[in-house]
Amino acid sequence: MKTVAVIMGSKSDFEVCKQAIEVIESFGVKIEREVVSAHRTPDRLATFGHEADGKYDVVIAAAGGSAHLPGMVAAFTNVPVIGLPIKSRTLNGVDSLLSIVQMPPGVPVATVAINGGKNAGLLALQMLAIGDLELRAKLDQFKLEMKEDVEINHNGAICE
Amino acid sequence: MKTVAVIMGSKSDFEVCKQAIEVIESFGVKIEREVVSAHRTPDRLATFGHEADGKYDVVIAAAGGSAHLPGMVAAFTNVPVIGLPIKSRTLNGVDSLLSIVQMPPGVPVATVAINGGKNAGLLALQMLAIGDLELRAKLDQFKLEMKEDVEINHNGAICE
Amino acid sequence: MKTVAVIMGSKSDFEVCKQAIEVIESFGVKIEREVVSAHRTPDRLATFGHEADGKYDVVIAAAGGSAHLPGMVAAFTNVPVIGLPIKSRTLNGVDSLLSIVQMPPGVPVATVAINGGKNAGLLALQMLAIGDLELRAKLDQFKLEMKEDVEINHNGAICE
Amino acid sequence: MKTVAVIMGSKSDFEVCKQAIEVIESFGVKIEREVVSAHRTPDRLATFGHEADGKYDVVIAAAGGSAHLPGMVAAFTNVPVIGLPIKSRTLNGVDSLLSIVQMPPGVPVATVAINGGKNAGLLALQMLAIGDLELRAKLDQFKLEMKEDVEINHNGAICE
Amino acid sequence: MKTVAVIMGSKSDFEVCKQAIEVIESFGVKIEREVVSAHRTPDRLATFGHEADGKYDVVIAAAGGSAHLPGMVAAFTNVPVIGLPIKSRTLNGVDSLLSIVQMPPGVPVATVAINGGKNAGLLALQMLAIGDLELRAKLDQFKLEMKEDVEINHNGAICE
Amino acid sequence: MKTVAVIMGSKSDFEVCKQAIEVIESFGVKIEREVVSAHRTPDRLATFGHEADGKYDVVIAAAGGSAHLPGMVAAFTNVPVIGLPIKSRTLNGVDSLLSIVQMPPGVPVATVAINGGKNAGLLALQMLAIGDLELRAKLDQFKLEMKEDVEINHNGAICE
Amino acid sequence: MKTVAVIMGSKSDFEVCKQAIEVIESFGVKIEREVVSAHRTPDRLATFGHEADGKYDVVIAAAGGSAHLPGMVAAFTNVPVIGLPIKSRTLNGVDSLLSIVQMPPGVPVATVAINGGKNAGLLALQMLAIGDLELRAKLDQFKLEMKEDVEINHNGAICE
Amino acid sequence: MKTVAVIMGSKSDFEVCKQAIEVIESFGVKIEREVVSAHRTPDRLATFGHEADGKYDVVIAAAGGSAHLPGMVAAFTNVPVIGLPIKSRTLNGVDSLLSIVQMPPGVPVATVAINGGKNAGLLALQMLAIGDLELRAKLDQFKLEMKEDVEINHNGAICE
Repeated sequence: MKTVAVIMGSKSDFEVCKQAIEVIESFGVKIEREVVSAHRTPDRLATFGHEADGKYDVVIAAAGGSAHLPGMVAAFTNVPVIGLPIKSRTLNGVDSLLSIVQMPPGVPVATVAINGGKNAGLLALQMLAIGDLELRAKLDQFKLEMKEDVEINHNGAICE
Repeated sequence: MKTVAVIMGSKSDFEVCKQAIEVIESFGVKIEREVVSAHRTPDRLATFGHEADGKYDVVIAAAGGSAHLPGMVAAFTNVPVIGLPIKSRTLNGVDSLLSIVQMPPGVPVATVAINGGKNAGLLALQMLAIGDLELRAKLDQFKLEMKEDVEINHNGAICE
Repeated sequence: MKTVAVIMGSKSDFEVCKQAIEVIESFGVKIEREVVSAHRTPDRLATFGHEADGKYDVVIAAAGGSAHLPGMVAAFTNVPVIGLPIKSRTLNGVDSLLSIVQMPPGVPVATVAINGGKNAGLLALQMLAIGDLELRAKLDQFKLEMKEDVEINHNGAICE
Repeated sequence: MKTVAVIMGSKSDFEVCKQAIEVIESFGVKIEREVVSAHRTPDRLATFGHEADGKYDVVIAAAGGSAHLPGMVAAFTNVPVIGLPIKSRTLNGVDSLLSIVQMPPGVPVATVAINGGKNAGLLALQMLAIGDLELRAKLDQFKLEMKEDVEINHNGAICE
Repeated sequence: MKTVAVIMGSKSDFEVCKQAIEVIESFGVKIEREVVSAHRTPDRLATFGHEADGKYDVVIAAAGGSAHLPGMVAAFTNVPVIGLPIKSRTLNGVDSLLSIVQMPPGVPVATVAINGGKNAGLLALQMLAIGDLELRAKLDQFKLEMKEDVEINHNGAICE
Repeated sequence: MKTVAVIMGSKSDFEVCKQAIEVIESFGVKIEREVVSAHRTPDRLATFGHEADGKYDVVIAAAGGSAHLPGMVAAFTNVPVIGLPIKSRTLNGVDSLLSIVQMPPGVPVATVAINGGKNAGLLALQMLAIGDLELRAKLDQFKLEMKEDVEINHNGAICE
Repeated sequence: MKTVAVIMGSKSDFEVCKQAIEVIESFGVKIEREVVSAHRTPDRLATFGHEADGKYDVVIAAAGGSAHLPGMVAAFTNVPVIGLPIKSRTLNGVDSLLSIVQMPPGVPVATVAINGGKNAGLLALQMLAIGDLELRAKLDQFKLEMKEDVEINHNGAICE
Repeated sequence: MKTVAVIMGSKSDFEVCKQAIEVIESFGVKIEREVVSAHRTPDRLATFGHEADGKYDVVIAAAGGSAHLPGMVAAFTNVPVIGLPIKSRTLNGVDSLLSIVQMPPGVPVATVAINGGKNAGLLALQMLAIGDLELRAKLDQFKLEMKEDVEINHNGAICE
């Protein structure tokens, strides 16, 4: 069974990660969640990275500030890593974003928007749907409902 | 057969895209390349987006400046879209990066570093390797060689 | 009759758009308002863009974050498009501004200030007033009242 | 006859302004060009602004650095003003862009990209084409050629 | 008698200007205050600028956003102009600061910190004290008291 | 006995400095605290700098805004100076950070994160622990507890 | 006789300072030039600051990077200090500008544009011209010639 | 014997690291240099970090772009880590700086200026000089020569 790991550097990142978890679970895909701090638990990170292959199909790693977690997981494994920058207290997440996205050649991180928890989840699902027609169909249904929500609810709200 | 589309907004983006193309081709994965401009050929973009499903497994979209191409392809399809920000003439690619990565909830783009052509290619391969043990093994071999290159060539160069 | 379309990517942009709508309506010019999301309703966007010519004289498009709406409408039509960047939650609208204003050669967007709803409306009126002496006269009257407001109310307030 | 004024703060801005002038002239629209410095010739600026109505249908104002020219012309007239930020020597035009676009409520400037001379010209033409079917048709032809250039020349270049 | 003019673009800038006014008045120097909007009252600005010489010895001009007021006053007069950038709603005053400080060669503005009302006042006093031994002595006394305040009150507070 | 000086430009910086003080005191290392303002008490700063050698082993200097304190202390002494940028009211501490970290060749300041009081304290302890096995052992114990806190408390919190 | 001191942190700043020196000398005002490094010669800085009163009427202080020189001179004296930010190698002078302009309440620095040597000189002259009708008249003549240069040479160049 | 490790993510960082190496060697302190890439050799990094204690007294870690090396070494050891941000190709080192300096509470990195190789070396020496009177004396001699160089050579150069 396909499994997505959602890891974060601190429990304070959970609020944003929950958006990823909820959307993935709503598609019936299995989630494993864990706090792995690149800076406070570097050995745990190395172990996680080494063991990712075989256990997980996609890893979502959320981090704020200097935000080394996503890039360091990607250093250990070829399981695709989605980097989720958390809005930081002082620099609004610009530090998190740059630290996550500006990876050197050889070790990519698939970066989404600052605090973009939901998109991290959807991107994981899109990756899993490569060659999985059923999941792709569910995603297409999701896209359709999103479209209808705009056309009916959003549009309705401003035309009252 | 798995296929990656590499599209770009202008032929001037080709230099960076070539890095993606070369790494993908070196893994024996099929590439299709095309110039699709979100702003100058929006209908072509819509057609490309609608037809992506079934034709491509991953799309790499490169763009600079206001850089709408990756996000707009992602609007039409659930095939995963990798956004490759091109360094722009005036703002060093900060505009490209923000425009590509700051997508709204519902439509993710997997963003890599500014001018990060090679990583766009590797990320595509990592996505394709989900559930493809052979490709994953090749990626692991690539990681190994990268490591050895650092340990021997880089380290050697500074210790002479 | 001259008509201005005011479109936005989400109902949450309405608060800022209302400033544009109010100033335009106060000049007796016709408004049509709609939610068109570049990312969630791309086909609706294409349709809107293709049909703009003949239906609208000016389009005001508001968007936040990666903010592709104004540029994408401009891709489909030569009806002048005014881009209204909405202050975003994480980056204060710098992302919206750069994404809207940094358009490539060939497809302009007339960009106004972040959250500058009122100016989007006034700019639309100034465009419509090209060759419309009556509307121009009304705008000149508006400018005069603005001046008097400064000279009397603002100046009065600080000299008490 | 419709006339566009292209003004700039210094002769060093001419290189970028020429792109606007060339595209406008290629559409057979009349241009008047002038150096008007907000800071070194403020009275000339005031005169220009007061007399714009009746003489010009659109004003394109280019400026770099603190870049007050576009906003100050807009202060004097309701003729639509297109602000063209020039890339500055020290801050890459971020200063020019912010100074031009962040106008207060009441006095809009239609801002285009940094060094976006061609788009300044096209935007002027789009404004003039409101209610001018012939000019609109020419712009549509221009859009068509741009599309074909992408599909044939750009696409050709990368597929050789 | 030496006179300082304190002008601002809008009554909303008064809170910050008050800091300048208070410090100047506490030194017994005459103040004149006025709202002069570069964009909404450009003729008033021109008149103010032309008449500054002879009426004022120093001008403090506060402005936010595109913040053209200080630079435009400086365009009309050689009375020294102190530019006071006001923290703006969307960009924290970065726009105000850059627009005020990045003046072209020939027309300087003496820029102080964002919301630095008190320093604008003190700088005006320092300028007036050139060749005015009495005022210089008062400023030296002020500096002395500031020093003592740090040594006694601040230091005391953290050592309790 | 090893001593760390914690100095700050104003009593308003104390809240952040307290984090440094608390962590240092928890390791049983002696602290001296003082308000030294580079701008309001420059002679006190010079005296502090000249006398640092012999009195202190490490200096932590906190400052916001133009934040000259850390660099100026470092100008006077070779006692290592840790610069602690305080989040500023208008620019979020970007000004403080750049002013502290961008020192010219010859005079280093060991800069920590914006508002990173705790890390300033820990860095001071790490410096003191060079050649002090007992202190190093305490720091290793601290690292261990931090790791366990993540593994138990943080991880526990998100897995409930 | 009125005297302006032009000081800089390093001889590499001389190129920009020369612009200030030349314009001041062309007005027949006396200049004294010196290298005073805040970080490498802090005692020389303190001496310079303490002795400024009586020797100089205005101080121009140029500095790049963390750029503490202008603010530290201002800490010692009430002679007005003009801060001249030098474009730095890595951050284009943004660091220099913020460090110079963001001074705390009580100690102003009159900041000019990045690399704005000429304006530093003119601002010094404007300060000296307070109450000096002859110097003011010369500055007015300078303003007039600048205006004519724009109207004739600049305008001529683009209209050929 | 005291030893400083100078590590870097890639041989291209060597040019800047050489400045650190040269200054340290000129003080007779032992250097070990190594290429350790956080992303391409993460296990080597872990080994390096685990073994640092006992082998090195200070670690200087240089890195560009997402620049995880300094923070990750600091995660493994309490040997003080000096982070040296390398100017990156696209973002001038702003990404490197933020990624290195914005470390979370618990794991400090002593960050120096972008490309500040020499200061990284001097800071390492200052740390080693805690409690080493001979090395401190050498550093004081270095400071003295720097001062004399400014007073004689720099000052001389601009006064010719």
